[in-house]
Amino acid sequence: MANPMWVERRSSMGSAPADKLCIHTATTRPLSIELGVDAYAAAGVAGITVWRDALSGRDPVAVGDRIRDAGLTPVSLCRGGFFVSPDAAARAVAVADNETAIREAAAIGVPMVVLVCGADPAVRLETARDQIVGGIEAVLPLAEELGVQLAIEPLHPMYADTRSAVNTMRSANDLTDRINHELVGVAVDVYHVWWDPQLEEQIERCGKRIFAFHVCDWRSPTRDLLTDRGLMGEGCIPIPQIRSWVEAAGFNGFNEVEVFSTEYWAQDQIGYIDRIVDAYGQHV
Amino acid sequence: MANPMWVERRSSMGSAPADKLCIHTATTRPLSIELGVDAYAAAGVAGITVWRDALSGRDPVAVGDRIRDAGLTPVSLCRGGFFVSPDAAARAVAVADNETAIREAAAIGVPMVVLVCGADPAVRLETARDQIVGGIEAVLPLAEELGVQLAIEPLHPMYADTRSAVNTMRSANDLTDRINHELVGVAVDVYHVWWDPQLEEQIERCGKRIFAFHVCDWRSPTRDLLTDRGLMGEGCIPIPQIRSWVEAAGFNGFNEVEVFSTEYWAQDQIGYIDRIVDAYGQHV
Repeated sequence: MANPMWVERRSSMGSAPADKLCIHTATTRPLSIELGVDAYAAAGVAGITVWRDALSGRDPVAVGDRIRDAGLTPVSLCRGGFFVSPDAAARAVAVADNETAIREAAAIGVPMVVLVCGADPAVRLETARDQIVGGIEAVLPLAEELGVQLAIEPLHPMYADTRSAVNTMRSANDLTDRINHELVGVAVDVYHVWWDPQLEEQIERCGKRIFAFHVCDWRSPTRDLLTDRGLMGEGCIPIPQIRSWVEAAGFNGFNEVEVFSTEYWAQDQIGYIDRIVDAYGQHV
Repeated sequence: MANPMWVERRSSMGSAPADKLCIHTATTRPLSIELGVDAYAAAGVAGITVWRDALSGRDPVAVGDRIRDAGLTPVSLCRGGFFVSPDAAARAVAVADNETAIREAAAIGVPMVVLVCGADPAVRLETARDQIVGGIEAVLPLAEELGVQLAIEPLHPMYADTRSAVNTMRSANDLTDRINHELVGVAVDVYHVWWDPQLEEQIERCGKRIFAFHVCDWRSPTRDLLTDRGLMGEGCIPIPQIRSWVEAAGFNGFNEVEVFSTEYWAQDQIGYIDRIVDAYGQHV
């Protein structure tokens, strides 16, 4: 569902620059990263965010070289996090896995790892947030050594049971303030935060700590909690408005298209990439 | 999934009183209101919240009498609201429908109408909130005349596209402050607000304006955005904790069980009511 009102508003804000378009490998999950890199480059996409499943069986250094050889910028590695568990041994495993992600990021040559921080139905949310701070602080020495940023991504409250206990920009800002380290910032995904009346003020508060900006759209109806995201312009998120806020806060990085959609994954991925480029030009 | 930690916590907070148990007719949707009233009374349930679909083809005065004759207290009428539309004529229809709801409430003899305030993917959330305030103010003269309270129910952010632009307790408090009328308050439903780090402070802020308290649970996984709620104790919501907060704020009304569940609606409803009573005693 295109929204004429917001298209109009967008034009007064200026278009998102073509050289800031980045696509997540998870958006085109049916393509191997090699096919994805070639197809993104052929479509004029500027950046790529690598999901860890796309690295499976591959040398991350070679993946990074291939990305750069194709003329693409490696933007982020998705995803670390999942620091929360009632079980201390499981939390230690999560820390080790995040260290692996940081090493992979450094090997690829991406500046940051995006964190889906974790939640567990058996852990109270306040406790979960303490465990998240503990997990991030545990991996910070390695992040410092390798110069890798960590971006806390607030997730939609519908994921507060099992995916993240950080569900608003305010909460992400609070944790970032607590950790207070130049390598720790926030990834703003419009899908997760668009509904929040405090969004503009909390984006402003985040300021230069905004490390990443993800776009897609909220479909009405949304038929599945995880894999029914829309392409930009298909839903009700005022993306250009939110982009104007993150830019006013000082962000000038990539606009990353992250769409989980069983519907789109079932389609021809090359034609789909063209649709993404088109939707980016019109609705971001 | 029962949560032993919270059962333990509950015991330190005291159990929810049996004489404060209310069930929503929508919880036992397969039962007519007549069968529901009899079954609730037989199970020792104290109150009933009437959904408007349950009134279909009936005289609301007679329904109210039947509820009281069975020894039940009529607690709320669900639901008014849906004030938001890009179309002024549609908004006027919504106002008229809310006036009908207020008349029905007065006829039944319930003290309040619960408002699912409305949202529309073509209306920005800020504008939607203005329309909500306008809609409530338009029906207030009739509410005053008939002495019916209006309870703004903040809805989970996953319903911000089509159901409500009021998605946090803070936002409900802000609107209530704006309207600033003794008949306008808030209905707190744990399903919608449990994830919010500002919940305790905003419940405290709401204080005596808390008009209603709804309970159910958040299942992991939640398989449907609308109709996969859990019975209390089956999920991760710290219900006794939230109940302790609303009680500390001054609320001493009913604890209303509102469970939308295709799974439970498919079961024997009489046995299900016994399960509700049991879950209430253990997990509220």
